[in-house]
Amino acid sequence: MDMSRGQDAALRARALKVIPNGMYGHESVRMLPDSFPQFFSKAEGAYIWDADGNRYLDYMCAYGPSLFGYRDARVDAAAQAQAALGDTLTGPSPLMVELAETLVDMVDHADWAMFCKNGTDATTMAMSSARAQTGKRIVLVAKGAYHGAAPWCTPIPAGTVAEDRAHVRTYAYNDVASLEAAVSDAGDDLAAIFASPFRHDAFIDQEAPEPAYASRARELCDKTGAMLVVDEVRAGFRLARGSSWSELGVQPDLSAWGKCFANGHPISALLGSDSCREGAGSIYATGSFWLSAVPMAAAIETLRIVRESDYLEHMVRLGGRLRSGLDAAAKKHGFTLRQTGPVQMPQIMFADDPDFRVGYGWAEEMLERGIYVHPWHNMFLCAAMTDADIDLTLNAADDAFAALAARRGDLAPHPILVALAAATAG
Amino acid sequence: MDMSRGQDAALRARALKVIPNGMYGHESVRMLPDSFPQFFSKAEGAYIWDADGNRYLDYMCAYGPSLFGYRDARVDAAAQAQAALGDTLTGPSPLMVELAETLVDMVDHADWAMFCKNGTDATTMAMSSARAQTGKRIVLVAKGAYHGAAPWCTPIPAGTVAEDRAHVRTYAYNDVASLEAAVSDAGDDLAAIFASPFRHDAFIDQEAPEPAYASRARELCDKTGAMLVVDEVRAGFRLARGSSWSELGVQPDLSAWGKCFANGHPISALLGSDSCREGAGSIYATGSFWLSAVPMAAAIETLRIVRESDYLEHMVRLGGRLRSGLDAAAKKHGFTLRQTGPVQMPQIMFADDPDFRVGYGWAEEMLERGIYVHPWHNMFLCAAMTDADIDLTLNAADDAFAALAARRGDLAPHPILVALAAATAG
Repeated sequence: MDMSRGQDAALRARALKVIPNGMYGHESVRMLPDSFPQFFSKAEGAYIWDADGNRYLDYMCAYGPSLFGYRDARVDAAAQAQAALGDTLTGPSPLMVELAETLVDMVDHADWAMFCKNGTDATTMAMSSARAQTGKRIVLVAKGAYHGAAPWCTPIPAGTVAEDRAHVRTYAYNDVASLEAAVSDAGDDLAAIFASPFRHDAFIDQEAPEPAYASRARELCDKTGAMLVVDEVRAGFRLARGSSWSELGVQPDLSAWGKCFANGHPISALLGSDSCREGAGSIYATGSFWLSAVPMAAAIETLRIVRESDYLEHMVRLGGRLRSGLDAAAKKHGFTLRQTGPVQMPQIMFADDPDFRVGYGWAEEMLERGIYVHPWHNMFLCAAMTDADIDLTLNAADDAFAALAARRGDLAPHPILVALAAATAG
Repeated sequence: MDMSRGQDAALRARALKVIPNGMYGHESVRMLPDSFPQFFSKAEGAYIWDADGNRYLDYMCAYGPSLFGYRDARVDAAAQAQAALGDTLTGPSPLMVELAETLVDMVDHADWAMFCKNGTDATTMAMSSARAQTGKRIVLVAKGAYHGAAPWCTPIPAGTVAEDRAHVRTYAYNDVASLEAAVSDAGDDLAAIFASPFRHDAFIDQEAPEPAYASRARELCDKTGAMLVVDEVRAGFRLARGSSWSELGVQPDLSAWGKCFANGHPISALLGSDSCREGAGSIYATGSFWLSAVPMAAAIETLRIVRESDYLEHMVRLGGRLRSGLDAAAKKHGFTLRQTGPVQMPQIMFADDPDFRVGYGWAEEMLERGIYVHPWHNMFLCAAMTDADIDLTLNAADDAFAALAARRGDLAPHPILVALAAATAG
């Protein structure tokens, strides 16, 4: 496929003048292969079109928000019906109560809900609520886990001060001894333990939560009075129709939600148990658009489809086909994949590829064939994907692996990753 | 008017079960007169309808976002056209570049833009960018000013730790000596001075910025290398068609925007000069929905109307009529108003009303007559208001003042304010 990139290049040149570095945040392509487009003009179902009109089957799903596919007709009809009444008003709409009741019904541990806009809003409110509830300060997070971009949790310290993390400490995910030691070190000042539903850190193999780790986290919170917080922002409703740790028999006190529960409409939420109601009720949390009605209408419809459709089983089945098919295709061409994480949220990297040169090369080859995959961040399936899309992907992968094998000797690591590695080693 | 409140009461009872305290944030009616409805079902132009179907002329405009009136047909058509293409995608749309260029054109000091969702996102990014740019830590804010709800700036400390404000210090707005002393105390560690375009703190008379204060803030930043930040979130585009301090001849390095620049669609922005481009480019700032295309389409159309219509002059003219008419009506019934702030963002309180009992009573009487006013927060006019709306307001006010005069001896302070005053005095 010969893809035009003229519009994207022109937009990047303009962006460089009016946006620092031309782009920022997780949707910047600065750390992706050079051929990846920065700008997208439209989307439908499982597909996105870049500014030059090239179409891709999108395995990022907007980094999560697209759960049923872009512009889902059911969700968008609910949003439009509410937009014809009102969105951001002087007070919330009755839909806010209905949405809170819906989430409380669906998420086992939840007795109440608070709505916000960013995942970071929800995780920060979780931290503040836990501190207010317990009167304690120390918050434990797994080393390398992403819980947002606020000063207390941002992965890049530029512009923060040491005090922002004064009481934020780390433990190793899935490592009971490490967690116990961190809890012990916190003495009588432990406010919360944060955990992701599974280990979905960038650049590494993903890990399912060990049942012993999850249940020990709960026990340690019960023993110390600290709040257990599960950060569902990235994985929520892609692993289960409610709390991701319910299948482990572990109920948190607080859970943070975002990304996909309104299928791409902007809303996030903090859910909590009665164990933290008073703390949550005492903090000041607000935002200009937090109580807007349109995303709540979209969320109510999204959650109805979550309850009533087989969206999850469908994604899991397709994800299973994708994983086994990719393994076979890779093997055929002499590559070994490291495929980790739930099949509906796959992380795909290559064995013996410490500087990601093979992964970047494969992502380039897939993109060239109309499939958008990511070389180091977990991906997302959506329910709009079909068996035909998996066939398309596997056919493209067969060609991509062949092309990659042919240029294997010429692959070089991406300059940004080289610079990062040097900085880290420094 | 006999207003039914049954639906609102039923919703509040349900909300109390599934939302801490039944509501939170700036749209909670906990600190408003008891008759104020909590839930709203629809809106159009300058009017809102509560859950019981009662209609009000709305002088809060969603606490700012409604600039041209609710559901402005021009803005919403632009939003819908983009929604038919895509909203939250795997990358930004070309509209992001166009919107950044538009704001850079319209706001004198701005050389670049970054988009986010909450006003708090923008002010926090301003702080982080200033710290990154200068390599210094101390941030000065005016005592009592609201810059958002994050741990470093929330007006209510519950759930925060002392370290959150380790390097945040205060000065008195409009007080040059106080500002100079704070800058001097900061020594060589000053990162930023924050200022609101005018003093719009709750519960007090508003103050226009003294030219000497604004220009001294600029000089002190020039002298120390600190960044001057104007927080335009609440007032932006209601005072001017660009930077609010341009009329004073003072250009900040950074400005935070939110609320109304997409007429109620969810988007906020940090704008900056080249003096802070490197700092802003070095911080990690991101959110799931920050680059969504629909609010950007709405913003581009909103800003076109800002440039091409007389929306501002219209609001100022109506605001002037409102102010003088209310003064006359109050006087006729033996009341003296304290009307402060720009006429299009009026603060209306009563002389000799230290515990707000008269203000609360008047707000109740106005609400009963279909006019939604606030007893202690600045209000907002929108461009959808008409002379007929001002006539309606002044007629209602005449009746309201008469009714208030009749029950003057029976007025009592609101229990929440009594409790707050006691806590503060304690």
